Amino acid sequence: MTTQQLIDQIKRKKSFLTIGLDVDLSKIPTHLLELEDPIFEFNKGIIDATYDLCVSYKPNTAFYEAYGIKGWISLQKTINYINEKYPELFTIADAKRGDIGNTSSMYAKAFFEDLNFDSVTVAPYMGKDSVEPFLAFKNKHTIMLALTSNEGAFDFQTLTVSDDSQPKELYKKVLEVSKSWKNSENLMYVVGATKAEYFTEIRKIVPDSFLLVPGVGAQGGSLSEVCKYGLNKNVGLLINSSRGIIYASNGLDYAEKARVEALKMQQEMEDILNSNFTF
Amino acid sequence: MTTQQLIDQIKRKKSFLTIGLDVDLSKIPTHLLELEDPIFEFNKGIIDATYDLCVSYKPNTAFYEAYGIKGWISLQKTINYINEKYPELFTIADAKRGDIGNTSSMYAKAFFEDLNFDSVTVAPYMGKDSVEPFLAFKNKHTIMLALTSNEGAFDFQTLTVSDDSQPKELYKKVLEVSKSWKNSENLMYVVGATKAEYFTEIRKIVPDSFLLVPGVGAQGGSLSEVCKYGLNKNVGLLINSSRGIIYASNGLDYAEKARVEALKMQQEMEDILNSNFTF
Repeated sequence: MTTQQLIDQIKRKKSFLTIGLDVDLSKIPTHLLELEDPIFEFNKGIIDATYDLCVSYKPNTAFYEAYGIKGWISLQKTINYINEKYPELFTIADAKRGDIGNTSSMYAKAFFEDLNFDSVTVAPYMGKDSVEPFLAFKNKHTIMLALTSNEGAFDFQTLTVSDDSQPKELYKKVLEVSKSWKNSENLMYVVGATKAEYFTEIRKIVPDSFLLVPGVGAQGGSLSEVCKYGLNKNVGLLINSSRGIIYASNGLDYAEKARVEALKMQQEMEDILNSNFTF
Repeated sequence: MTTQQLIDQIKRKKSFLTIGLDVDLSKIPTHLLELEDPIFEFNKGIIDATYDLCVSYKPNTAFYEAYGIKGWISLQKTINYINEKYPELFTIADAKRGDIGNTSSMYAKAFFEDLNFDSVTVAPYMGKDSVEPFLAFKNKHTIMLALTSNEGAFDFQTLTVSDDSQPKELYKKVLEVSKSWKNSENLMYVVGATKAEYFTEIRKIVPDSFLLVPGVGAQGGSLSEVCKYGLNKNVGLLINSSRGIIYASNGLDYAEKARVEALKMQQEMEDILNSNFTF
């Protein structure tokens, strides 16, 4: 999917919502547990109930790997279902991968070719040659961690790096340096909603990039705050909600209740878009 | 496996060799491609030919994920084969995972419980709460990236962090900070062999920890240099070789030739151990 197709979808749906498909068997409705593939059935229910309110789905690979081969099959069925039934949806493999060059190429093959996701999240610690193999894929997107939504973000990401004439936090250095990498136009970045005040500075470095924003909802971030400082001329934000939507109910009505929560977010987003854009 | 069991194995085998099972279907002997599970058959051949010369096997998950469900099945069969036939071997899932707390818990469950690896590699960028869920597992080991063997290591890992009174490189800060985490005795670290001169400084920070050292062989690092600066009183090193051993031949004799290469490394290690230790 091209970035323009994603932007067009956002304008059409008046939504920049990503729904995180982080399926934990201990949290899903018990009636699904009797089915052959409870994880896929759960996802199917959520997707069919919300596909018109969001622009993207983001399965976190950890939740699938935890169930071994069965989990991997559920992941494959989920991405295939989205790609076949709702091909306009932008898909994110939240995998946070990164390794030396020849190994990152294998991860890129796994997520872009074998599973056919539109994008994958990666970690920056190993630098340029760990990320460029992902960037080489045309019309695929690599979403690199910059400033994450968890407490541990303050352990290293916000440390001051002083090699340049102008000292700056590590996450800013990560953003800056990555702009010089080959095919960097295929980069997006993860920036946590729990740190809304940082968006102004981040937009100075990457004014045009899409930012994937976790941390709204269960983790405490505010949608309006993030938008205030993070929106750009093409919206440029994908706001993720996982637990707040998919676990809105653990009864027979889980999909219906997920739709209610997704609709609330979509409407909040529609209001924000209407007051900031003329499309 | 306890750290002491690993040390005992090193002493017994006079080896601290880890063999990286990074299986690329385009590089393995063509006669294996006709079998139902070429990746597993390849690994089985390598393992049966080298188990007495190394102390550990390290499949890199990227090479399995690249083949989708089939690859994940090959990974599971490989780890099961090692655990059943050679239970004394230390197993490393080279996965470089790391995510927010509840997600890292799922990764830990995937590698420590579902697949039953002894250890897993993790990335430090997301900080304490992304790593502690792994550390909570008793007699399991979490091997965190510190200074990697690739060129991109110089993009961020060696930047000077100046928040403390004493400015230091980021990888040193990562080592230092991680020592304060809960159950940090379950930490080991990845330090690339291509940077042997750094081992002296690293040993000042983590004198007792095991270091997993990639980059000897194909990537150009020197075993004797690494040992000169990196050995500690319990050896404290696991030297990985992947391509140099497993792709020594791509003919019918691939396992035999892998043994020849592994034996060369084991003998070099035996010499080093004999001149440094009295066990």
